[in-house]
Amino acid sequence: MNGAEAMLETLITGGVEVCFTNPGTSEMHMVAAIGASTGMRSILCLFEGNCSGAADGYARMAGKPACTLFHLGPGLSNASANLHNARKANSPVINLVGDHATYHKQYNTPLNSDVVGLSQPVSHWVRSIEDANSLPGDAAESIAASMVQPGRISTLIVPADCAWDECETGAVTTHTLPPTPRVSGAALDDATVMLERDIPTVVLMSNMALSQRCLELADQIAQKTGARIFCDTFIPRLPRGAGRAPIERLGYFAEQATEQIKDAEQLIMVGTKAPVGFFAYPGKPSEFWPEGATLHTLAKVGEDAQDALTRLAERVGASGLKARRTTLNKPGLKSGELSPSTIAVAVARLMPADTIVVDEGGTTGSACFPATSNAVPHDWLSLTGGSIGYGLPTAIGAAVACPERKVLCLHGDGGAMYTIQSLWTMARENLDICIVVFANRKYQILQIELARVGAQTMNKKTLDMMDLSNPDIEFVKLAQGMGVTADQATTAEEFNALFEESMNTRGPRLIEALLP
Amino acid sequence: MNGAEAMLETLITGGVEVCFTNPGTSEMHMVAAIGASTGMRSILCLFEGNCSGAADGYARMAGKPACTLFHLGPGLSNASANLHNARKANSPVINLVGDHATYHKQYNTPLNSDVVGLSQPVSHWVRSIEDANSLPGDAAESIAASMVQPGRISTLIVPADCAWDECETGAVTTHTLPPTPRVSGAALDDATVMLERDIPTVVLMSNMALSQRCLELADQIAQKTGARIFCDTFIPRLPRGAGRAPIERLGYFAEQATEQIKDAEQLIMVGTKAPVGFFAYPGKPSEFWPEGATLHTLAKVGEDAQDALTRLAERVGASGLKARRTTLNKPGLKSGELSPSTIAVAVARLMPADTIVVDEGGTTGSACFPATSNAVPHDWLSLTGGSIGYGLPTAIGAAVACPERKVLCLHGDGGAMYTIQSLWTMARENLDICIVVFANRKYQILQIELARVGAQTMNKKTLDMMDLSNPDIEFVKLAQGMGVTADQATTAEEFNALFEESMNTRGPRLIEALLP
Repeated sequence: MNGAEAMLETLITGGVEVCFTNPGTSEMHMVAAIGASTGMRSILCLFEGNCSGAADGYARMAGKPACTLFHLGPGLSNASANLHNARKANSPVINLVGDHATYHKQYNTPLNSDVVGLSQPVSHWVRSIEDANSLPGDAAESIAASMVQPGRISTLIVPADCAWDECETGAVTTHTLPPTPRVSGAALDDATVMLERDIPTVVLMSNMALSQRCLELADQIAQKTGARIFCDTFIPRLPRGAGRAPIERLGYFAEQATEQIKDAEQLIMVGTKAPVGFFAYPGKPSEFWPEGATLHTLAKVGEDAQDALTRLAERVGASGLKARRTTLNKPGLKSGELSPSTIAVAVARLMPADTIVVDEGGTTGSACFPATSNAVPHDWLSLTGGSIGYGLPTAIGAAVACPERKVLCLHGDGGAMYTIQSLWTMARENLDICIVVFANRKYQILQIELARVGAQTMNKKTLDMMDLSNPDIEFVKLAQGMGVTADQATTAEEFNALFEESMNTRGPRLIEALLP
Repeated sequence: MNGAEAMLETLITGGVEVCFTNPGTSEMHMVAAIGASTGMRSILCLFEGNCSGAADGYARMAGKPACTLFHLGPGLSNASANLHNARKANSPVINLVGDHATYHKQYNTPLNSDVVGLSQPVSHWVRSIEDANSLPGDAAESIAASMVQPGRISTLIVPADCAWDECETGAVTTHTLPPTPRVSGAALDDATVMLERDIPTVVLMSNMALSQRCLELADQIAQKTGARIFCDTFIPRLPRGAGRAPIERLGYFAEQATEQIKDAEQLIMVGTKAPVGFFAYPGKPSEFWPEGATLHTLAKVGEDAQDALTRLAERVGASGLKARRTTLNKPGLKSGELSPSTIAVAVARLMPADTIVVDEGGTTGSACFPATSNAVPHDWLSLTGGSIGYGLPTAIGAAVACPERKVLCLHGDGGAMYTIQSLWTMARENLDICIVVFANRKYQILQIELARVGAQTMNKKTLDMMDLSNPDIEFVKLAQGMGVTADQATTAEEFNALFEESMNTRGPRLIEALLP
């Protein structure tokens, strides 16, 4: 067996089942190995950023890594923005990056670059393979490295000769995953003391603290101690809707977030860090907590949040309480002019149980989150790294991980153009994804931010840099051109009818919501 | 004036006139400065890889840098594959990358990343700004760094507070460009001795050695000494067609290139390196020159090729000769089944004088280069870094640099999907670009390479990883969806008519050539 085959068998026995791929010549032996295998599903994407975003979405829903297959440094570069988002989501991903044969790199040919240097800023773990015999061991290590909880980015750089040379060691088929560290007794002691004080307290949670079980534990603690439970603005995955324990979400803008927690005298972080601004603004503080508030991290991102909350609930005497559950409350549909709020109402009313919502709705999509608090049970995935263009690819990955669930992708028009090629893969794989494009034909967030940062040159030349009209983008044609059924909605009635039909039909579907 | 304004005035007085932009919140003060300026044209692209490719095309035709405007690390990542191509083309480019305010980076918020680390592999020069006062000086240095001949990638990382803080130093308005080093007398001596030997000699040229004047000098030397003149397979820019001095081009595959130069006993490199394989193949040599041949570099990439060739022509007594000129010879149009060769004939016959051909035609477009040897005078730009998706953006930049010239972009279908958003910018700016998409609906080069590397698993699962059908991509709809007039050609007659109309009409136009 050659290096590529031994690597692949190692990955498959380690539980890696899906490869999102965009290969080139230097990856041909890995392509052949995947083609000859039965245990690795291959999904072709037309741009590497679609692969990395798909691996992120897959990881968030499957709880384990997919692998990607990229062509040297430039292939990795194209994947890097969505690897950045995946890294910030703490998603496990294994990148397989082909490189020139070890003896060929010295010639510095056109495709040669510093692949290790390109990998490091977007990876937690990077390994450049030395020879075919070390490939299976390094592949096994890449799995373990990606599964450090909640999840990490592993990048395995595979020179072509390491893939095609005979591998005498054979595949590694015994895998050990890293344990998840428990929080210290001291961290628990401090949190207990804080919660037993009778002063306003906020518990801020994200990542592993956003499982259903953790939300229930946090709610028990809240009932017992009066603490308020919040999650970060941008969360990898949040189970919510009817039957789930409730949680408040911190607002995006400083004026929202600081208002929400202005009374807090103590903040306890579980699986996240203290709340700060997404960006800095001239003359405004970056830190959102009230001056003088006590900050305490109960569980860092990589620590066992469920264990910590279980122990904390026991300490404060909340274990016996029953967690509150969100009730189902479907709003009535709206008619008339199409707007962010009429769309939000339709989503809240019509999406089916267990929908996975992939949210890159931006400014105009932001009404959907509050509107769906009392909708059917669902999962909410958001843009964790701030790099737009994550939504369509992440929807691919979520749909591959959960083929029985509807995926609803809420997308701003600007961000959708970044990785628009994703539509083709959705059509090819017949994935059950409904995309709602919020077509306001501008980078609206930037027009808001321009004023907020005090850079107030609002002339035409400035605004043109944030304007997506001239020409208007026709998303219906783009979708059709890649094999996805698509329609435009210009009124609430049109949107409601199209959305309802889409919720009741399987397969990829795009609705362009043309906003005034 | 704030830092952003001082930086912008520095760039403008340094001759930088165009900014290809895709900004975000952290760039708002730079956006405002550009919006308030009259000396900097702003061109919005919907994806950062479109900006960097456009800057490459602009630089190749204008001989000076454009700047780009990107949003933190992920914006730079999205630009990086085409920065790789630009770096390999030795194109001058100045990247302006916004970053978090200096005091905000410590919070490691969602968009935070190692911007310096991401910049280094794709840049020759990187500077992270420390404060508003150092911004103009660093901007001036970025221009000089980009103009080290033939051209380099400068990356200026601008924390938001450095842009919005008051800049007391003001703009830098006096600029000094770096001199181009001349080749040593010893390098010239060796080349002279080699050419005076009566043995088969090849002169291999690229980069600065591919100016019209250099081609003429090389031809004079060839006439006098019997040397054969070649250019690299992938060249930043080659003036060719009627009236230009002829040059042979080295083939892509080893079996082509080694056959072309199999008799050479000496190779002299001017503005390039000794010829090697694009990729390694199992059991085949990477080096293309015949065993035992003498190699000599007369001028390295950054050295003054024209000066070197002028002196060499004098030394060998070729200065008085008249360079040969390619004659005009237009072929007759073909009819019947559409094929790569019928398209090549139409291009050779119908393109107007001074067309700029941006070639990412891949496998099926490769017939166009030989077919156009005796066409009207034109420039040929090719994919220098091997990272597909350069063609459409580079066409944007070439058209912006040369608004009076027709740009013809020959593009494979696979590569075109990488940066398809470029079509929107072409429509918005009404650029005079005709795109021919060679729609064979596969990554054909990979199917060829799969066999060549000996990875012969040609089953359906393997071939699906290189197949672009299921669903077929409808380029006409994609183009129309972004405001570009488009048609599909299925016969030679249809193609000829559409192509002729496009050559006689200004503005962006796409022809999907559906190949059997």
